[in-house]
Amino acid sequence: MSKGDEARATLVDAALQEASRIGLAALTLAPVAQRAGWSKSGLLRHFPTRESLQLAVLQRAVQLFRERVLLPALAEPTGVPRLREIFRRWLAWVAKSGLEGGCPLNAARLEFDDRPGEVRDAVAAYWREWLQYLERQVAKAVEQGDLRTSLSPRQLVMQMTGLVSAYDTMLRLLGDRSAARDAERALDQLLSN
Amino acid sequence: MSKGDEARATLVDAALQEASRIGLAALTLAPVAQRAGWSKSGLLRHFPTRESLQLAVLQRAVQLFRERVLLPALAEPTGVPRLREIFRRWLAWVAKSGLEGGCPLNAARLEFDDRPGEVRDAVAAYWREWLQYLERQVAKAVEQGDLRTSLSPRQLVMQMTGLVSAYDTMLRLLGDRSAARDAERALDQLLSN
Repeated sequence: MSKGDEARATLVDAALQEASRIGLAALTLAPVAQRAGWSKSGLLRHFPTRESLQLAVLQRAVQLFRERVLLPALAEPTGVPRLREIFRRWLAWVAKSGLEGGCPLNAARLEFDDRPGEVRDAVAAYWREWLQYLERQVAKAVEQGDLRTSLSPRQLVMQMTGLVSAYDTMLRLLGDRSAARDAERALDQLLSN
Repeated sequence: MSKGDEARATLVDAALQEASRIGLAALTLAPVAQRAGWSKSGLLRHFPTRESLQLAVLQRAVQLFRERVLLPALAEPTGVPRLREIFRRWLAWVAKSGLEGGCPLNAARLEFDDRPGEVRDAVAAYWREWLQYLERQVAKAVEQGDLRTSLSPRQLVMQMTGLVSAYDTMLRLLGDRSAARDAERALDQLLSN
């Protein structure tokens, strides 16, 4: 990495920590500059607008999510084993992402639905792609005969991603430590019809 | 209502519209005063802090949600019929609450999990109470014999509330008009095991 790239990465990491705590939508430049030990004008040289910083944070969060959740799960065979591994790792990511707060991607779904602009478009594109990937995995599981379900791939993915969202609330808002077990159990039922 | 009460209600309604669009966490006093056609000092006489306004908005959102989702569903018999009616009305509320944006209660789950304070406590108390109510309905449905499921009431409620959250994303972020049908279908499968 060049010095410029390193500086940029430091700023994005500081911004990601901030976004994890307060949300991507609430992210502003001044607290990020302070956190990174930079002047606001120094930050502005790398990220001239709030949106450019939000987009960089989103991209970095997606990259981390891929490294922690998706890529290791690719070692599992397609279909049900991979879906289970994704789910297990996704719960672990929600509980302990290494960030100070919760998953900014999960929160961004609701923060940006009524905020038109390029950040919203990027959040929507990320979610669309991720849900489509999961739908393809479900479809493969059905084709391979290791999943019998009366639900369509889309319906099953709504259940699966909804469980992650419910888990997020139970664990992070309500402090329910048994929520992971309940979520895993509910997924079992979903995948074993 | 006294004049003071009326003024307060006008301010809370303006703040609720704003919160629906940008989220309860991002709510600040100045745009609310402007929206209501008040001076900021006038607003401060009724709501001396941001938190006091956020709490009033939360209370009003909960009241509206009860009027639109819970209370009409009480006309249905306890158990499965009531759960279905709650779900149907909850989806309708997410799609078209009469507010300018999405359901501020849904968004607040994720906005406040890392923001300690009395607003977070109130959001958590609301969600805890609502989830417990739904769990009791599921338990009754099982007791009455109109629901057979291998899931615990808590697990089934995670599935049900997760579906609402997935629906919110599919409809409001991704603009998928068939999401309501998919959510209803997934609920059918959940309640007909």
